[in-house]
Amino acid sequence: MSVNKPMDILNQARERRVLIRLRGNRRMRGILKNYDIHLNLTLEDAEEIASEGTTKLGDVIVRGDNVIMISPPPK
Amino acid sequence: MSVNKPMDILNQARERRVLIRLRGNRRMRGILKNYDIHLNLTLEDAEEIASEGTTKLGDVIVRGDNVIMISPPPK
Amino acid sequence: MSVNKPMDILNQARERRVLIRLRGNRRMRGILKNYDIHLNLTLEDAEEIASEGTTKLGDVIVRGDNVIMISPPPK
Amino acid sequence: MSVNKPMDILNQARERRVLIRLRGNRRMRGILKNYDIHLNLTLEDAEEIASEGTTKLGDVIVRGDNVIMISPPPK
Amino acid sequence: MSVNKPMDILNQARERRVLIRLRGNRRMRGILKNYDIHLNLTLEDAEEIASEGTTKLGDVIVRGDNVIMISPPPK
Amino acid sequence: MSVNKPMDILNQARERRVLIRLRGNRRMRGILKNYDIHLNLTLEDAEEIASEGTTKLGDVIVRGDNVIMISPPPK
Amino acid sequence: MSVNKPMDILNQARERRVLIRLRGNRRMRGILKNYDIHLNLTLEDAEEIASEGTTKLGDVIVRGDNVIMISPPPK
Repeated sequence: MSVNKPMDILNQARERRVLIRLRGNRRMRGILKNYDIHLNLTLEDAEEIASEGTTKLGDVIVRGDNVIMISPPPK
Repeated sequence: MSVNKPMDILNQARERRVLIRLRGNRRMRGILKNYDIHLNLTLEDAEEIASEGTTKLGDVIVRGDNVIMISPPPK
Repeated sequence: MSVNKPMDILNQARERRVLIRLRGNRRMRGILKNYDIHLNLTLEDAEEIASEGTTKLGDVIVRGDNVIMISPPPK
Repeated sequence: MSVNKPMDILNQARERRVLIRLRGNRRMRGILKNYDIHLNLTLEDAEEIASEGTTKLGDVIVRGDNVIMISPPPK
Repeated sequence: MSVNKPMDILNQARERRVLIRLRGNRRMRGILKNYDIHLNLTLEDAEEIASEGTTKLGDVIVRGDNVIMISPPPK
Repeated sequence: MSVNKPMDILNQARERRVLIRLRGNRRMRGILKNYDIHLNLTLEDAEEIASEGTTKLGDVIVRGDNVIMISPPPK
Repeated sequence: MSVNKPMDILNQARERRVLIRLRGNRRMRGILKNYDIHLNLTLEDAEEIASEGTTKLGDVIVRGDNVIMISPPPK
């Protein structure tokens, strides 16, 4: 098994804008402030992205077990 | 990994009104009194927000595994 | 994190009538006799509340992982 | 927290007929023979109750995580 | 709590034909060869029972968390 | 409880073609190379079986919590 | 039980393009950079595959409990 953990790329994504897909077809975007091993996340300046448009959420804490995937910004 | 935990922003949100999204498309608002690491929450003066209007709930304890996300009030 | 736990308000609600929302859109009311940290509950004189009316259940034990939220009676 | 556990009323319900609600809108009735802390149950002379009528099941072991609630018989 | 565990009746059901209900409305029948505390099961000469008829499965291992209930044969 | 574990029949099924039912009505077939106690599986020469036909998957690792049941080949 | 673990084939798949099936009928492809025992994955140059076409995702971290299966590339 790897010496690096899958979540290490999140450490490099801190203070940067990430894209998050949640169960139930939700998508969000926000600046990653904190995370833990359960993928509980704190986002700043978050917004929900829907086909009808985006909704401003401000600061938000996301419970990790709703997360499907997280995309850090391109390097 | 961070020295701060994602839930630290909840500590700053205590005694303030937070917005909560629950599974099953429920949304609630209330004054955050307490929380634990599972995101079990105690709210005061809570209300459920639906498209038909809001319903007063008073004090309420929310089981954490229903929580999708929590938004503290703007700083 | 708080010295008080979210479930402490349940202790004050013992022997009083609480309102419970369960997954699957069920709602119940009953006198809270006991609870544990999983939100397993014992209710006395319980009834299920549906749009068609209420159904008497008598004593009932509720498995905690079905619970969404519990409202103690107003103080 | 209480010195009594929510499941203590099950101990008093042993050898008596209980009503059980399971996920997926199933309802059962049977004589409670045994249980454990996960609400795994053994029932004797069990029957499933549906709107179309009841089905005899005889002895049955129910996996606890399907249980929503259990009603002991009136005292 | 009981000195007997709910699963003890499974021990008496070994080498005998049991009826199993699984999540997703599946029903199976087979000779119980082995089980563990998670209700992982090994069945011999198993068959799936559907409204359209039965399907022979031969030996089969069932993952316990799909099990709703198990009926041993009548005594 | 038994000295044999339900999963022991999987040990005898290694290097042989097994049939797997997954949640969401998926069925697969492949040569069982490895497994663990969570029923995480490695299959070789795997194929998905659907009513429309079979799809070649080659080597595949299956996460155990999607597994409903596994049928080893007839003895 | 085997001395090899099911996930060992993932170690050989590192830095190679894998195909992933997720719950909710999602499919993805990407270069496997890292994984852990929960099947949390880090992918590089990832893309989502849908019937309507593919969507570029770039780097992505996938939460393991959404994974159904992973196919390493043919040997």
